[in-house]
Amino acid sequence: MKVKVVSHILEANDRIAEENRRLFDKFGVYVINLMSAPGAGKTSLIENTIKEISGKIKIGVIEGDIAGSDDAKRIKSLNIPVVQINTGGACHLDANMIREVIDGFPLKGLDLLIIENVGNLVCPAEFRVGENIKVMLLSITEGDDKPLKYPLMFQESSALVLNKIDLLPYTNVNIEKIKKNSQALNPKLKIFEVSCRTGEGLNKWIKWLQSLIK
Amino acid sequence: MKVKVVSHILEANDRIAEENRRLFDKFGVYVINLMSAPGAGKTSLIENTIKEISGKIKIGVIEGDIAGSDDAKRIKSLNIPVVQINTGGACHLDANMIREVIDGFPLKGLDLLIIENVGNLVCPAEFRVGENIKVMLLSITEGDDKPLKYPLMFQESSALVLNKIDLLPYTNVNIEKIKKNSQALNPKLKIFEVSCRTGEGLNKWIKWLQSLIK
Repeated sequence: MKVKVVSHILEANDRIAEENRRLFDKFGVYVINLMSAPGAGKTSLIENTIKEISGKIKIGVIEGDIAGSDDAKRIKSLNIPVVQINTGGACHLDANMIREVIDGFPLKGLDLLIIENVGNLVCPAEFRVGENIKVMLLSITEGDDKPLKYPLMFQESSALVLNKIDLLPYTNVNIEKIKKNSQALNPKLKIFEVSCRTGEGLNKWIKWLQSLIK
Repeated sequence: MKVKVVSHILEANDRIAEENRRLFDKFGVYVINLMSAPGAGKTSLIENTIKEISGKIKIGVIEGDIAGSDDAKRIKSLNIPVVQINTGGACHLDANMIREVIDGFPLKGLDLLIIENVGNLVCPAEFRVGENIKVMLLSITEGDDKPLKYPLMFQESSALVLNKIDLLPYTNVNIEKIKKNSQALNPKLKIFEVSCRTGEGLNKWIKWLQSLIK
């Protein structure tokens, strides 16, 4: 019975996600669903990305959080169209939440829409929201055992951004183990090693992102 | 409709949690529901706690993960009774999962049972499993904005263990902001600053834990 309810919810979600996707396609907007555990650096990656390429590529952002609007304020200060969704308890964004906010969102003229999901390494991977691709971040401070413990998100993502590599020398983390186990789950997974704090490695991420758009 | 389903699930869960609690009380076992985001260091805190006090206090552990049994292996190597729950996708432990495993678990003679929840800063806070108290970990590398973004877990917990404080000098994190905003949400919250890697600060945590039992 429990299983039936869940599969019904996922099917209904997928239908709405497809409608969202058709709308995004109509406006020629490329959409990334950005996921990670809390505090891995999603908003910092978006800020860095905006600073690097918003002169060439028009970016919009949808922020998802249980509560609060700090992230939307950070993005708004960069003069980028942004809307904050507060899920009010739900641990992931779903397609209907996105549908609710895109009606009033200035999609016209946008090249790239980044949807920052709720910080959670589990459920966001199950709910499509209408994106072209999923991208996940992992802070290396979270340890090297995450691919085997949270396999679905690694399997569903097109790219994995390993953030906070500047802290690597101060930890016991084996970054090669993360990369090996991630690509065992998903051989096509593109991996970037970056530090949003120092800027290290961001150029490769930016270059890849630009190659996706247009 | 959606809300009704959720409240029904939570009520049914609470009933089973009370039954679990009665069983724990019968055996005189104190139970901690240990929660955090992925990779904050729950298993490391349990390992350190076992090493410090398992001579004086009999400890058992239930490990919750989506997949894998690495954590249970780490605990088993310390000669502590442990059982691994794999939720198979679910992002939190619930009371029924605990009921399923405690039937065969050697509760007799135990003083303390630590239930390590799935790594997730959201849903575990909503589901009682039969615990006496909830304790949460936050790695300081997750940033200082977590209390305002994930308020429920801070409100529900009796203690907050701030882990990885050895990394503080290499980050931009304001630990006073974490403490202030956590205690604004929950004035009774007990806060410990520790590093499971260096051992710093663990003595205060251990002392507090010992004061709870018996």
